[in-house]
Amino acid sequence: MFKDLYSQEAKVLEENFVSLEIPAASDKIINFASGVPDPRTIPVKDIEAVTIEVFKRYGYNSLQYAPSTGFASLIDEISRFVYRTRGLKTNSDNTIVVSGSQQGLDLISRIFIDPGDIVVVEEPSYVLALNVFRLRRVRFVAIPVDDKGMKVEMLEDAIKRYGREGKRIKLVYTMPIAQNPTGTTMCEERRKYLLELAERYNFVIVEDDAYGLLTFEEEAPKPIASIDKSGSVVYLSSFSKILAPGLRMGYIIVGDDETAKKMHIMKQFMDLGTSTLSQLIVETALKKGVVDKAIEYAKSLYRLKRDIMIELIDEELSDGVSRTSPKGGFYTWLKLNRDVDTEKILELSRKRGVIFTPGKRFCINEDKCLDAMRLSYSNPSENDIRIGIHILADVLREVL
Amino acid sequence: MFKDLYSQEAKVLEENFVSLEIPAASDKIINFASGVPDPRTIPVKDIEAVTIEVFKRYGYNSLQYAPSTGFASLIDEISRFVYRTRGLKTNSDNTIVVSGSQQGLDLISRIFIDPGDIVVVEEPSYVLALNVFRLRRVRFVAIPVDDKGMKVEMLEDAIKRYGREGKRIKLVYTMPIAQNPTGTTMCEERRKYLLELAERYNFVIVEDDAYGLLTFEEEAPKPIASIDKSGSVVYLSSFSKILAPGLRMGYIIVGDDETAKKMHIMKQFMDLGTSTLSQLIVETALKKGVVDKAIEYAKSLYRLKRDIMIELIDEELSDGVSRTSPKGGFYTWLKLNRDVDTEKILELSRKRGVIFTPGKRFCINEDKCLDAMRLSYSNPSENDIRIGIHILADVLREVL
Repeated sequence: MFKDLYSQEAKVLEENFVSLEIPAASDKIINFASGVPDPRTIPVKDIEAVTIEVFKRYGYNSLQYAPSTGFASLIDEISRFVYRTRGLKTNSDNTIVVSGSQQGLDLISRIFIDPGDIVVVEEPSYVLALNVFRLRRVRFVAIPVDDKGMKVEMLEDAIKRYGREGKRIKLVYTMPIAQNPTGTTMCEERRKYLLELAERYNFVIVEDDAYGLLTFEEEAPKPIASIDKSGSVVYLSSFSKILAPGLRMGYIIVGDDETAKKMHIMKQFMDLGTSTLSQLIVETALKKGVVDKAIEYAKSLYRLKRDIMIELIDEELSDGVSRTSPKGGFYTWLKLNRDVDTEKILELSRKRGVIFTPGKRFCINEDKCLDAMRLSYSNPSENDIRIGIHILADVLREVL
Repeated sequence: MFKDLYSQEAKVLEENFVSLEIPAASDKIINFASGVPDPRTIPVKDIEAVTIEVFKRYGYNSLQYAPSTGFASLIDEISRFVYRTRGLKTNSDNTIVVSGSQQGLDLISRIFIDPGDIVVVEEPSYVLALNVFRLRRVRFVAIPVDDKGMKVEMLEDAIKRYGREGKRIKLVYTMPIAQNPTGTTMCEERRKYLLELAERYNFVIVEDDAYGLLTFEEEAPKPIASIDKSGSVVYLSSFSKILAPGLRMGYIIVGDDETAKKMHIMKQFMDLGTSTLSQLIVETALKKGVVDKAIEYAKSLYRLKRDIMIELIDEELSDGVSRTSPKGGFYTWLKLNRDVDTEKILELSRKRGVIFTPGKRFCINEDKCLDAMRLSYSNPSENDIRIGIHILADVLREVL
């Protein structure tokens, strides 16, 4: 019926768009595929108590419209939280409450990107960020990631190369800490280097810090935004991985007041504002230390699960694959030592009850990542990780 | 910092974009300005009980990621609800759960509208729908509304006129029942006529039914979507006015499977999915009859408040103004009998503690609506309505 009525944006959706696979809770499958938190890290009892308190304290205002810019009291709590945990100085005007990081990415891309603009992403990078950019019909520049994060020197080369053609890079999307999908963290030197480039060549750094609070080293690395004095960084984070994804709560922090204002208006047009109940639950959870407690537990659990997965990979798979060493977050990234399309391996392993995400879905240059896969240790139990890696090892032995 | 980096869309936000004014609950002001529900219509005790049940029943799954297409069980409840109350036949694949109508409008406009496309709106029409379309940089065609709704014969004239120039109308946005801001309902004849035009000239009807369940007559008028056999209508509604705006829950129903599929993918990119907790609360509230009960109460309360406001307007203002006769919803629309810009009247009445929304904010041809104003009776108490109209009458007497 509407065939000839779609927008350019909707037409992009015709092509075979990759979606993330999130199996239903009832599915009996070992899920290394998606970045779904371990249920034990969601403090459901605490959140239930917080919710009852919210109803008691705010009455019908807990269900009324909220200011589309977010409650001032929530923004205060977020400001204290990011200063304490991430070294970020903010003011109430430059924080934008969003309905999860995904909405933040969409909002940011609508603020900065027109069709044809050049956007830099890490390779590999987060699938749904790539998809948001694809929707804007950008021109991608993919910069490889090694064990020290994005190879920023290659970015500088690209900037110069495009510059000679009279073109400029507008936006760089990075997840410098515990990157999705590799689990690697950008070294301090490169983080500074990237910021210098943004200042010199005037582009936006979009820093996605989704896993920044779930790192496994003694000293948690600080985001680029914490050393940004020029206002070059648009910082994005969320409560999905450290409290509860189902609340759909995230936030953007920008250095630049005018940009913050535009984002606030855009947010109103996008959904009038984030769920009032979610806002008040997160505010109260921050105030009562529920978030801090949840982070401590989640860190120790994910560290344990990473250790189990890594150890088993080294025991069972080391002949056939190389892997990253995740410094935090949910994922490790494997590369097979032979030219095999991991989509085929997924077909086989799925039959045996194990799923993961094939590497090419995270890459602009798909052919470079055909032999790679992302394994998430976040959701399956410790025992399922053991069983799952064992099955995967079997499948790989058959194939390789 | 980012001045030369904004997108075309963000540049639109530079111009003096109209936002809706929602005063904080603590503000001592009589608010005829915004479409905020009466707090008494929000069944906070029932929703609290439902929420506790959700936590008990679903445990951590009440806070985990939800399917971005919406829970199947929620969609089943919505299907039963819209069939029973609005005569709409749906299937689970063509319902898209969104985070409130506003997100629905944004999603729909991203699916159908490119810059420069011709979009028809009623004049006057809902501000934030206009803004979403402005963001897409559309070319507006404004069709006047009288006491029988949009003057559809003028739409046909416009279609033909544009047709002769080789241009076509792509989308018609209408709120046929208890329209915002006039409160009028499109007569059945025009509803059928509009549908015929959509079929003949192949455009999308976006039918916003936000107030369709809050009508004051014995027989509730049915939406255009309920008589649409060709799949020309994209139907949009929400739980904001009949249950609780703070849950941010709405839904789109489309006849066309391909469009539904595109919308589901777009929704994933926009925010991964609507709050899990909100989805499960609404599902359970539908199941337990909480929504039905809330609608009955809301209807009787808003009917009473409309009666009070209308009666007082006729008593105190009838010399200076003419008004619409709201058949439902939250609003009446006044036109002054003299050429006075109602923005100026707002300045004066604000000083005396009463706010409303000046007419021009709802209009494409602002000059046609300078002498108009929207009064909302939804939020102020019955007594405040009396006091507020009295103050407004004083202010108008001074000015006119």
